[in-house]
Amino acid sequence: MKLLEDKILAEGRALNSSTLKVDSFINHQVDPVLMDAIGREFACHFKNAGVTKVLTIESSGIAPAVYTAMHLNVPMIILKKQTSKILNGNVAQTNITSFTKGTSYELTLSLDYVNPSDTVLIIDDFLANGEAATGAVRLAKAAGAKIAGIGILIEKSFQKGRQKLLDQGYDVYSLARIARLDEGIIEFVK
Amino acid sequence: MKLLEDKILAEGRALNSSTLKVDSFINHQVDPVLMDAIGREFACHFKNAGVTKVLTIESSGIAPAVYTAMHLNVPMIILKKQTSKILNGNVAQTNITSFTKGTSYELTLSLDYVNPSDTVLIIDDFLANGEAATGAVRLAKAAGAKIAGIGILIEKSFQKGRQKLLDQGYDVYSLARIARLDEGIIEFVK
Repeated sequence: MKLLEDKILAEGRALNSSTLKVDSFINHQVDPVLMDAIGREFACHFKNAGVTKVLTIESSGIAPAVYTAMHLNVPMIILKKQTSKILNGNVAQTNITSFTKGTSYELTLSLDYVNPSDTVLIIDDFLANGEAATGAVRLAKAAGAKIAGIGILIEKSFQKGRQKLLDQGYDVYSLARIARLDEGIIEFVK
Repeated sequence: MKLLEDKILAEGRALNSSTLKVDSFINHQVDPVLMDAIGREFACHFKNAGVTKVLTIESSGIAPAVYTAMHLNVPMIILKKQTSKILNGNVAQTNITSFTKGTSYELTLSLDYVNPSDTVLIIDDFLANGEAATGAVRLAKAAGAKIAGIGILIEKSFQKGRQKLLDQGYDVYSLARIARLDEGIIEFVK
């Protein structure tokens, strides 16, 4: 997606061979016009996949996911990183280890909102080792849902997440695929 | 806002005198059409306030805030509950205690994205004791910004947050104002 690639080149900051900061338009400050365009692009790609729910992981996936859901005319569901006092009862949970952030957390989905009649599209901001996306897939499957595919804003194509998801047979649609990062260097997959 | 009040009456679940579950359309499953309408309503109310940025607190505020920002044609900024490895440097931080959730957390704003030329609108899902909103105000002021006002989806009007913010001179615009909650009972302010 040229719009996103251009934004990454203009405002993204490559700090080293694995870290790309996109705080100015995705992770901290968010550009709503870009999010709307991204949502439209995902909705277009997955329009014949029978999507009934869009799933995302809090919190950077929420903005692109809610626009994707709007353009597909379905609800969006936020997989929660913390079980609040308010969300309890009939839930599925799975553990995620984020190598990028050096953290581990429990991801929760209420089974009140996803069931075997659903086909879910998973949206996330980054795909690196695929831990978060794979966790979202596990939760959707625990709810008995089918997986329409996985939509990613920025894929670190030099890491193994994409292949891991392809090997499981999923449609992985990444809007920007990065072949190489280094200090001040961002190269896309050609 | 009648649309939101109707949704609360239809799908909200009052568990006791202080807890209202809105997991089916705001906090876990999200209705994008409702979020768009909410964003439009906030944008309309604050259209002459000179808003340059919409601020929200991750993660339930993100969906309504990104639509508000879109309709005001300004960026949205997510105040982060955890300082990621990636967000560092020039930041303001403040501590928030959530009585509702029984937790305490550090809220972070990068000063790269809000500065003294900004006028910010703060959007959040719930207003109860006003701890989160007051924390967001502190961060905006630490960045030198002016406060256009505070937009809230659901106000627990029987708690003290609204008055606390009004006493500081802020425009508090709540789309649904709840006068009383009890098991199975939801009464709006008349």
